[in-house]
Amino acid sequence: MAVIDLNSDLGESFGAWSMGMDEEVMIHVTSSNVACGWHGGDAEVMLRTVRAAKARGVAVGAHPGYPDLLGFGRRSMTCTPEELYAYTLYQVGALMGVCAAEGAELQHVKPHGAMYNQAAKDPKLAEAIAKAVKSLGREIILMGLARSAFEAAAAEQGIPFAAEAFADRGYMADGSLVPRSQPGAFIHDPDQAAGRMLKLVKEGTVETPDGQTLKLQAHTICMHGDNPAAVKMAEVVKAALEKNGVAVKNLREVLR
Amino acid sequence: MAVIDLNSDLGESFGAWSMGMDEEVMIHVTSSNVACGWHGGDAEVMLRTVRAAKARGVAVGAHPGYPDLLGFGRRSMTCTPEELYAYTLYQVGALMGVCAAEGAELQHVKPHGAMYNQAAKDPKLAEAIAKAVKSLGREIILMGLARSAFEAAAAEQGIPFAAEAFADRGYMADGSLVPRSQPGAFIHDPDQAAGRMLKLVKEGTVETPDGQTLKLQAHTICMHGDNPAAVKMAEVVKAALEKNGVAVKNLREVLR
Amino acid sequence: MAVIDLNSDLGESFGAWSMGMDEEVMIHVTSSNVACGWHGGDAEVMLRTVRAAKARGVAVGAHPGYPDLLGFGRRSMTCTPEELYAYTLYQVGALMGVCAAEGAELQHVKPHGAMYNQAAKDPKLAEAIAKAVKSLGREIILMGLARSAFEAAAAEQGIPFAAEAFADRGYMADGSLVPRSQPGAFIHDPDQAAGRMLKLVKEGTVETPDGQTLKLQAHTICMHGDNPAAVKMAEVVKAALEKNGVAVKNLREVLR
Amino acid sequence: MAVIDLNSDLGESFGAWSMGMDEEVMIHVTSSNVACGWHGGDAEVMLRTVRAAKARGVAVGAHPGYPDLLGFGRRSMTCTPEELYAYTLYQVGALMGVCAAEGAELQHVKPHGAMYNQAAKDPKLAEAIAKAVKSLGREIILMGLARSAFEAAAAEQGIPFAAEAFADRGYMADGSLVPRSQPGAFIHDPDQAAGRMLKLVKEGTVETPDGQTLKLQAHTICMHGDNPAAVKMAEVVKAALEKNGVAVKNLREVLR
Repeated sequence: MAVIDLNSDLGESFGAWSMGMDEEVMIHVTSSNVACGWHGGDAEVMLRTVRAAKARGVAVGAHPGYPDLLGFGRRSMTCTPEELYAYTLYQVGALMGVCAAEGAELQHVKPHGAMYNQAAKDPKLAEAIAKAVKSLGREIILMGLARSAFEAAAAEQGIPFAAEAFADRGYMADGSLVPRSQPGAFIHDPDQAAGRMLKLVKEGTVETPDGQTLKLQAHTICMHGDNPAAVKMAEVVKAALEKNGVAVKNLREVLR
Repeated sequence: MAVIDLNSDLGESFGAWSMGMDEEVMIHVTSSNVACGWHGGDAEVMLRTVRAAKARGVAVGAHPGYPDLLGFGRRSMTCTPEELYAYTLYQVGALMGVCAAEGAELQHVKPHGAMYNQAAKDPKLAEAIAKAVKSLGREIILMGLARSAFEAAAAEQGIPFAAEAFADRGYMADGSLVPRSQPGAFIHDPDQAAGRMLKLVKEGTVETPDGQTLKLQAHTICMHGDNPAAVKMAEVVKAALEKNGVAVKNLREVLR
Repeated sequence: MAVIDLNSDLGESFGAWSMGMDEEVMIHVTSSNVACGWHGGDAEVMLRTVRAAKARGVAVGAHPGYPDLLGFGRRSMTCTPEELYAYTLYQVGALMGVCAAEGAELQHVKPHGAMYNQAAKDPKLAEAIAKAVKSLGREIILMGLARSAFEAAAAEQGIPFAAEAFADRGYMADGSLVPRSQPGAFIHDPDQAAGRMLKLVKEGTVETPDGQTLKLQAHTICMHGDNPAAVKMAEVVKAALEKNGVAVKNLREVLR
Repeated sequence: MAVIDLNSDLGESFGAWSMGMDEEVMIHVTSSNVACGWHGGDAEVMLRTVRAAKARGVAVGAHPGYPDLLGFGRRSMTCTPEELYAYTLYQVGALMGVCAAEGAELQHVKPHGAMYNQAAKDPKLAEAIAKAVKSLGREIILMGLARSAFEAAAAEQGIPFAAEAFADRGYMADGSLVPRSQPGAFIHDPDQAAGRMLKLVKEGTVETPDGQTLKLQAHTICMHGDNPAAVKMAEVVKAALEKNGVAVKNLREVLR
């Protein structure tokens, strides 16, 4: 039987500022990527988010980002591998401290925003992150873009890897995401997204904007929770998967 | 045989800015209090500091502070116990992440600056910190001012406590430090400091500015490393202790 | 004819995080207090806010706060007068830079949150802020709590002062606000608030929770815009004032 | 008679951390580039630096940088022109607020680190900075790399431009600096640097590492003050220029 994990970025509020419909999207996913205070989130938000995830049986993952609160970690920065290694240790360690207080286990690490995008293409950055994850625990899963530098880095370090696909994004023939400025970058229709994801999980393929068929294997699908339409898409995609014989399961079971 | 641990605040550099004579003072102490990035220190500095401490056999402790980089964590802030609990989990967890990468064990937690001073007098703040330390590991020692709220909080949480004395500071008859604005606040002469600390360790007393004798038990003495005179004092105090039959030992052995 | 200015804190969004119903409340006020990036707001938010205020004929004021983004500037901090002086110059100067680009004039300075509350009671802090305002331009109005240290500080420095009252807060007999933890701290009913403000403007008095009558002169009334109820209160208070013969006018005209 | 301005980056200390030999290098230069709190410097440091510069007759300039305190503004970031425009208004405005308090005039703006390097090559970024400078005052000089995008941007906005040369850096035949990783990137010998700068000022040329002669006109030479060798170089270069008939003058006089 086909299985898949569904993940969502959560805990991105900061101080007096709220962000995201965490409560609403949490009921549709099996893995949470919890912001670690550098691009979003703060110590108290992390505590609340881990508590809520644990209460709902959603696995906890760390979502470390660049030291760019003002830019929400979305701006490319030329960090060295040594910097990224230390930044990952720091942020994931901080979340592990929070997890310890809540009796939650850290399941995975998924870099955020520009850190994710830059490391997906740069083997040295991906290696730095994978090394940090390995240092923090050999059972911790590195989650990253399918067919990216993350996969090779995880293999080299001997740590588990979870390939991620995006329900609301288009793919180029080489497996990269369609740039945000190009047509086909976004899938807005929940039913279309559901159909694409069903095909991805069952057949291991996704169609590109120019009609080619890309082979793509994914262990987890990223869902968003920043607005009502995103939450609706998560609901629709999950329902379509389950109705069509796909089991939405915890990531560790998917990787087994 | 009388025993004592010597501790020093280390790793307080930040980004492009250097602070402290870490290398020089490290050879005179047995415990390090490593800044965790909020009042000083950063992820890379933490990594370097833990590595250097481990290489010299100096035990690693966390030195969490207020979120006040501009004020170096020295300004009083009205944080709630809930905030302090989360802040301690976050910062100590971050250092534990760094320790994991270096194969170092976290020995203790000693709050910094205004967090230290405010919690020493406020049972609710001390309790919040002690609870966080307990969550992170029941073997982790809470280090704080002798005869302060830290001691009661550690006892209540059932975690080990290390009472700290200051070689370069005067004491009031109630065990509190002489305020920085009053005469007798500071001991500048290394030999005088050494004599006071020797008496403290061997007889359990220290003399107050007005000539009274205060009973004070300490497991560890704080040494500074921010300037050559401070490093010299550390050297002189340590030599005087050892010459007079006091064993300078690892904190766990002192607490045994 | 009785006149009054209405002010509101605006531009408190930060980076990816939105806060406040600026557009909605802006139509009910004559003065804006624009956050300057330390407790909230950022350079781009400031630019957008000044542009919007100018477009609607709302006067621009600076709303400097403590360097405590995580705590939204609401936590007491022990800053020195020298620090507050420099912090005010910096933040107000930054907003003046933004105003220069938009061809807007800076009308006033109103400290935010804990900086406001601490300086209202501490003549040295109020003096530091007043001195900074004076340095930035002798026409700039210092806005602060009626009957507080701000008033004396402004008088001493020879700069204009605007006394502020709060539509949604109760007053003690000494002119201070009822502490948030006590009964009578908040006025929730828009009509009650409107009635109180009308009496304040026309008769110069406000009733305390224990039935006393406090003499209070105000040049401006603070309105909030963080939620629909607050915006509704602003609308109701303004309408009641205008219906009852009070002219809601620009602060400079009120002070004339 | 040949004239030149000498500039140095100053005021880069932050909070408890000191950086740079400001006092020592200040006596050898005519223009100061004062950090504005984002990559270095803070409100109090800015106040002290402007005061010291004014006391010594050194002109004050703003040295805005990226919002990257941890990386000292040296890391490339993908900021939009809109962001840079707002960041420049904010930081330069803040320094102008400080200048107002000290009765100092703002002479120029010189971007820092990665902001300088990226804008020197990117006309849209250079334009954003030039527009912000123009908004803040049409007399304010934009200082930037000779023969870079800054020059064109200043011309387009109709604001004065000062071309900067570096005493301790090698030049490529196209006028760009030799990359730090290549041979010839740095000139370490003060006498060699002095000789090169003398030739630059008097003949308008500088020799490249491969022996070509580059035409380069400069209005100001950048001197460093972060270490004793840098201060020595500033002293030697200045003495050599003056001994050989070059007048070291205020930048406004050089541009006249």
